[in-house]
Amino acid sequence: MFSGLIAETIRLALTEDLGHGDITSSLIVQEDRDARTIIRAKEDLVLAGMPFVREVFSIIDSCVEVNAFLAEGADVSKGGEIAEVKGNARGLLAGERTALNILQRVSGIATLTRAYQRLVSDLPVKIVDTRKTTPGMRFMEKYGVRIGGGSNHRYGLYDGILIKDNHIRIARGVKEAVGMAKKGHHLLKIEVEVSSFDELREALDAGADVVMLDNMSVEDMAQAVKITKGRALLEASGNVNITNVRTIAETGVDLISVGALTHSAKAADISMKII
Amino acid sequence: MFSGLIAETIRLALTEDLGHGDITSSLIVQEDRDARTIIRAKEDLVLAGMPFVREVFSIIDSCVEVNAFLAEGADVSKGGEIAEVKGNARGLLAGERTALNILQRVSGIATLTRAYQRLVSDLPVKIVDTRKTTPGMRFMEKYGVRIGGGSNHRYGLYDGILIKDNHIRIARGVKEAVGMAKKGHHLLKIEVEVSSFDELREALDAGADVVMLDNMSVEDMAQAVKITKGRALLEASGNVNITNVRTIAETGVDLISVGALTHSAKAADISMKII
Amino acid sequence: MFSGLIAETIRLALTEDLGHGDITSSLIVQEDRDARTIIRAKEDLVLAGMPFVREVFSIIDSCVEVNAFLAEGADVSKGGEIAEVKGNARGLLAGERTALNILQRVSGIATLTRAYQRLVSDLPVKIVDTRKTTPGMRFMEKYGVRIGGGSNHRYGLYDGILIKDNHIRIARGVKEAVGMAKKGHHLLKIEVEVSSFDELREALDAGADVVMLDNMSVEDMAQAVKITKGRALLEASGNVNITNVRTIAETGVDLISVGALTHSAKAADISMKII
Amino acid sequence: MFSGLIAETIRLALTEDLGHGDITSSLIVQEDRDARTIIRAKEDLVLAGMPFVREVFSIIDSCVEVNAFLAEGADVSKGGEIAEVKGNARGLLAGERTALNILQRVSGIATLTRAYQRLVSDLPVKIVDTRKTTPGMRFMEKYGVRIGGGSNHRYGLYDGILIKDNHIRIARGVKEAVGMAKKGHHLLKIEVEVSSFDELREALDAGADVVMLDNMSVEDMAQAVKITKGRALLEASGNVNITNVRTIAETGVDLISVGALTHSAKAADISMKII
Amino acid sequence: MFSGLIAETIRLALTEDLGHGDITSSLIVQEDRDARTIIRAKEDLVLAGMPFVREVFSIIDSCVEVNAFLAEGADVSKGGEIAEVKGNARGLLAGERTALNILQRVSGIATLTRAYQRLVSDLPVKIVDTRKTTPGMRFMEKYGVRIGGGSNHRYGLYDGILIKDNHIRIARGVKEAVGMAKKGHHLLKIEVEVSSFDELREALDAGADVVMLDNMSVEDMAQAVKITKGRALLEASGNVNITNVRTIAETGVDLISVGALTHSAKAADISMKII
Amino acid sequence: MFSGLIAETIRLALTEDLGHGDITSSLIVQEDRDARTIIRAKEDLVLAGMPFVREVFSIIDSCVEVNAFLAEGADVSKGGEIAEVKGNARGLLAGERTALNILQRVSGIATLTRAYQRLVSDLPVKIVDTRKTTPGMRFMEKYGVRIGGGSNHRYGLYDGILIKDNHIRIARGVKEAVGMAKKGHHLLKIEVEVSSFDELREALDAGADVVMLDNMSVEDMAQAVKITKGRALLEASGNVNITNVRTIAETGVDLISVGALTHSAKAADISMKII
Repeated sequence: MFSGLIAETIRLALTEDLGHGDITSSLIVQEDRDARTIIRAKEDLVLAGMPFVREVFSIIDSCVEVNAFLAEGADVSKGGEIAEVKGNARGLLAGERTALNILQRVSGIATLTRAYQRLVSDLPVKIVDTRKTTPGMRFMEKYGVRIGGGSNHRYGLYDGILIKDNHIRIARGVKEAVGMAKKGHHLLKIEVEVSSFDELREALDAGADVVMLDNMSVEDMAQAVKITKGRALLEASGNVNITNVRTIAETGVDLISVGALTHSAKAADISMKII
Repeated sequence: MFSGLIAETIRLALTEDLGHGDITSSLIVQEDRDARTIIRAKEDLVLAGMPFVREVFSIIDSCVEVNAFLAEGADVSKGGEIAEVKGNARGLLAGERTALNILQRVSGIATLTRAYQRLVSDLPVKIVDTRKTTPGMRFMEKYGVRIGGGSNHRYGLYDGILIKDNHIRIARGVKEAVGMAKKGHHLLKIEVEVSSFDELREALDAGADVVMLDNMSVEDMAQAVKITKGRALLEASGNVNITNVRTIAETGVDLISVGALTHSAKAADISMKII
Repeated sequence: MFSGLIAETIRLALTEDLGHGDITSSLIVQEDRDARTIIRAKEDLVLAGMPFVREVFSIIDSCVEVNAFLAEGADVSKGGEIAEVKGNARGLLAGERTALNILQRVSGIATLTRAYQRLVSDLPVKIVDTRKTTPGMRFMEKYGVRIGGGSNHRYGLYDGILIKDNHIRIARGVKEAVGMAKKGHHLLKIEVEVSSFDELREALDAGADVVMLDNMSVEDMAQAVKITKGRALLEASGNVNITNVRTIAETGVDLISVGALTHSAKAADISMKII
Repeated sequence: MFSGLIAETIRLALTEDLGHGDITSSLIVQEDRDARTIIRAKEDLVLAGMPFVREVFSIIDSCVEVNAFLAEGADVSKGGEIAEVKGNARGLLAGERTALNILQRVSGIATLTRAYQRLVSDLPVKIVDTRKTTPGMRFMEKYGVRIGGGSNHRYGLYDGILIKDNHIRIARGVKEAVGMAKKGHHLLKIEVEVSSFDELREALDAGADVVMLDNMSVEDMAQAVKITKGRALLEASGNVNITNVRTIAETGVDLISVGALTHSAKAADISMKII
Repeated sequence: MFSGLIAETIRLALTEDLGHGDITSSLIVQEDRDARTIIRAKEDLVLAGMPFVREVFSIIDSCVEVNAFLAEGADVSKGGEIAEVKGNARGLLAGERTALNILQRVSGIATLTRAYQRLVSDLPVKIVDTRKTTPGMRFMEKYGVRIGGGSNHRYGLYDGILIKDNHIRIARGVKEAVGMAKKGHHLLKIEVEVSSFDELREALDAGADVVMLDNMSVEDMAQAVKITKGRALLEASGNVNITNVRTIAETGVDLISVGALTHSAKAADISMKII
Repeated sequence: MFSGLIAETIRLALTEDLGHGDITSSLIVQEDRDARTIIRAKEDLVLAGMPFVREVFSIIDSCVEVNAFLAEGADVSKGGEIAEVKGNARGLLAGERTALNILQRVSGIATLTRAYQRLVSDLPVKIVDTRKTTPGMRFMEKYGVRIGGGSNHRYGLYDGILIKDNHIRIARGVKEAVGMAKKGHHLLKIEVEVSSFDELREALDAGADVVMLDNMSVEDMAQAVKITKGRALLEASGNVNITNVRTIAETGVDLISVGALTHSAKAADISMKII
């Protein structure tokens, strides 16, 4: 499936790593040497990103074969085999690091997302991501979130209206800002960020579809749910972590956005070895 | 200073975030409205990445002014003001997230690197990075490592010879692999990864310039230093973390490479608000 | 303001026209010759596209000056002066055709849109565009629609959910399709195309936010408005033209989408002459 | 066949339409679902552009099959089947709009060109296009003109010498301008635009190969043919339309250039439906 | 002046040379150090290419100043100063090699072209280049030819009709090939390559505008001039060198094409030193 | 094997030559006509560059078949057949010139390199290239050097430390410069350019790994070898030519760098003819 931006990021990554060529392999590995490698988990993880691994090797050498042993989203235990990659040995070594860097990052995000998701899976709440993604990696990272069981918030500034504190300051009020947005667009929902009950009420009265509760205490969130009475979706945002996500979910909010899913996930440990 | 790849990553990041334009601002912020914002640390951090912030805004709107209050590498306390960014309000809001995503990531790396560096600063050892970087972000991430006081390992497969386990397997031995590399190149040093004392001795006898000790215990590293007797530089690699880095440094190795500096640093918390 | 795709289209257009250079000017116009030109309407039109004209000349020669005499959206009479462009004569001649091709097209769209808009301006209905745009020109064309007083429908497949006949066939029913969409996304409105009253009722019951009435007769549209009773926005689509747009609007639909605004607008006649 | 610029335009068009992905299909169409669609004329038209349709789908998904039932240039009646496109359903839906936008535009141009061409087909005159094309679409549009039976004028400023009023003003005379061009280039023909019989005579005396009669009346064109007596080719230009093209052709000019072929052709109505 | 392809080549050259940065300078030259350098001829040469040198430094650092002491086309003696380049020292060193590589190549071509040109300057003959240029450098190389006093042949396959032996073989004859070309295009001259007097006569009878005499002896060229009697331009081609160019010119041919001007010119020796 | 920069140069070269298409072939060669061509040496040469020829045709038309009759590095005599290229005739003609321009240049470099190499093949010295390459062609040119039996010096400013006169001037001394470089980098060797025995001694004392003797006389080189006593590799540089290379090699230097290999090699004469 066509995806211009992902391909561009992968080419950029290969250019970074390969530059004018892999010197070590050119000195040690014969040009026509074939090899077979196994991609293996070195810690427990949720697998995500094999389509991008496939793309990495198809750019380097269309004859390299990538056979995944597991589906995207599979829980893999430490030591588990994920895939074999076989073909020209220089090609395998040229793509190894780039492929692993992507797979480790996307799997890391899926793993972290699932950890959050599991804590709230019996509640009618969605764990969503943010725009706090790594430059150039947004599409792969948001994919990782989905594989981990999370949902995607808007992709960028272009596909969703989200009125934040900076906008409210410029518009001189929640009501004014929501009003301007409603007049301008009939096909997108309108979300607004509020930090007090007064702002919340103003947002509801102005007809906001979604309200983001910015950095509210759990108690205040619970109160916000009561005030809202289903008139809009509520999104909890700010200072969410693995220890408080359950408590937040229990307040009855509809969405919990977690920036850490993408900006601070640690890479899943994965290796690729010739066998 | 020219740096094609960095500019390409930044443009990709802006394309991801802006797409066909910032809808919210187009509805709420007048076209000619100016504003002034402050970039502020929301936790203690080492500042790194302001040149990239400058580049973000210069691509969006060459009239936006970015004035840094602090030098790259400065220790900033929670709440500290980092810079002001002022100019057309739509331009500021359009660049905000991309600028912060980069600044938070690069500062996060600098902050983590300095934490490692401080623990070993009285010893003649260097903390170095790896190729385990985020696709498209390698140059910015390695910059963050330098600002944090670390040193850079090779940039990619093209500017250093590093013979790893996969190569040794293909060459059928450390000695053979080093020999092939030495015949082929007279202007680059040769580094080889070993996992036993026998391999270490083989590497030294074959004339390796640098030897990477792969996942050795601290005791084995100390022994490796004794065996080597300065005939080559020694690099500790694998399972280095903030709690064992000092002990590793005390074994007398010359270099300690830490993948986590780039693959698992958490983003530093930074905001940009209109005032 | 940054807009990667527009700049890319303009560069492509310049590459098409200039290739390895303007031979005629290189033979006839001295390198350092300056000139002043006037851009003038050769028929009545609505002006739209001067920001792109500015971009064309800034790419060719940053010293060329473009001074618009009129605001975007101005009604210009035949013969009216639109702008002066002055600077190096070779630069002016190199950009002339590309600048005019864009200005004529975007103004043509704005002119046509305003013609539709004026016919319905006293009614609470919006004239909206479609995705039937010229490849590479979508952003400029949708801008022309806005300047002409129309509104934009979604930009592409990525920023709006629009369930069309092909989707309904695959999902085996309107209800099924809307249901799947609602489960998947909580932040975007859902629009569905229907071609009968039964489908309309199914869509309303399933909770569609907007319903597109595909190629319905004016009588059927009026009936659809009665059936809907405000439960969703209604969009008239198909076979809309300048003679029937008023009658369609009077049925009470909320939106009328007109593909011809972008796929069949004729270029406004505009010249640029050295004076 | 390699054609860098066409491929670039098509990728740009896909990027515009697909952005980060087709949301509707991702929610409703299963990933591995196949489908078959028919491309069908919804009005009488001359078919042109199937090679570009093929390119669109090959970029999206190399497994999609495009089988044209008719040759380029075929006259298709309303309702006629043009081609089948089959393969992965998400791929078909992702490419549908971009493919149709191109096919409708290029066929629209071929249809309009043929209408002109038929009116003069018994006369030794050529209908030619201009540089008044849509930015980024010049190559596809000039292809449409050829398929419709017209001929191409120069492609851009780089592959033909055409001395226009702006050049003549700078050179201070037709004779001077033609003289300068002849000295500079021995391998390209020289065309010059004139607006009076005096200028025409000057151009002929100076040795112009082709003379463009700018906005002359039909009577003046006839007179120009007499004055020229075959010493140069004559091109009629300006205000040509479907009602006067025959009369113009009968004056005996060699070429008639029609800007409207490309700048104001309406899109041919074509659909693509899953069956 | 806009020139997409030249800029692309220069960026490619800078990417090749700079990669992730100039290590040596980063270690030795302070970031804010300024310097002044002189570009100097190390042998006698014709200067050509300073506009490209300017472009190189403007890409690297827009604050670097390039002041040429001599005009393009100037004869420079060994040791002569060509220009000063001053500004940030790291910027100067980063651009030095790329700037010199271009300047040396383009000046080498201009120098060689002038050597040919001087030998025939009293005769009504033109020295022209070919398409035997360095990939990516065609526009700069053809510029060097013009500065050296030569003329440009067509730029590529797209801006001139040149029927060569391979075409004649496919068309099964000179007459057939010229006939096909004449029917297809009325605005470009037609050149045809011949290797015998029979083919020459066939070409003339078919109405060729220019005839290329392929690898003919000087005697045969003289005879060809007599046969042609001015009915077409004659171009001598093949095995032209500095020792026979005068004799060839004296046969009366109109054009002499010399592949060596671009494919085998040696670089002019030029240095750039900090003073 | 992936090599982004080479592909980019080849695309640039094709764009230069093909522009909007090959007019001559479009007029004379039927669209579906097939042909077979032979690539043949027109003088004695060392073959190098067939992988790039393959890439040229694969970009133009993936169905064209390129069959090399000889291995890279083969000595080919005048008249010898190098390869057949067969497939669609228009594709063959479209790629011919670009393919030959590359093959002639790279083979020219391999041929010249082998000439140097043969003169010193019994001595323990390496002929190396420089950064004096053609913009955009560095990777292909350095490949030609390797095929000819030479070795590559660093690829660019990014993969080797070479302290030249400009750096020494800024650092105020050889010792100072080498010292700064050693402190900054532990994984790359350090090369320094010297022009006197004093500087040589300084460099050796400072611990340089390689010393470049800049423009020294043969006698001085011999003396330098004695002074150095193997403490560093010595590289002869400047004014090396085919007549003095043997004498220079006999002084005992380890490396001889020859800029002329790439900046002044003449193109090998090669043709491609339909048979």
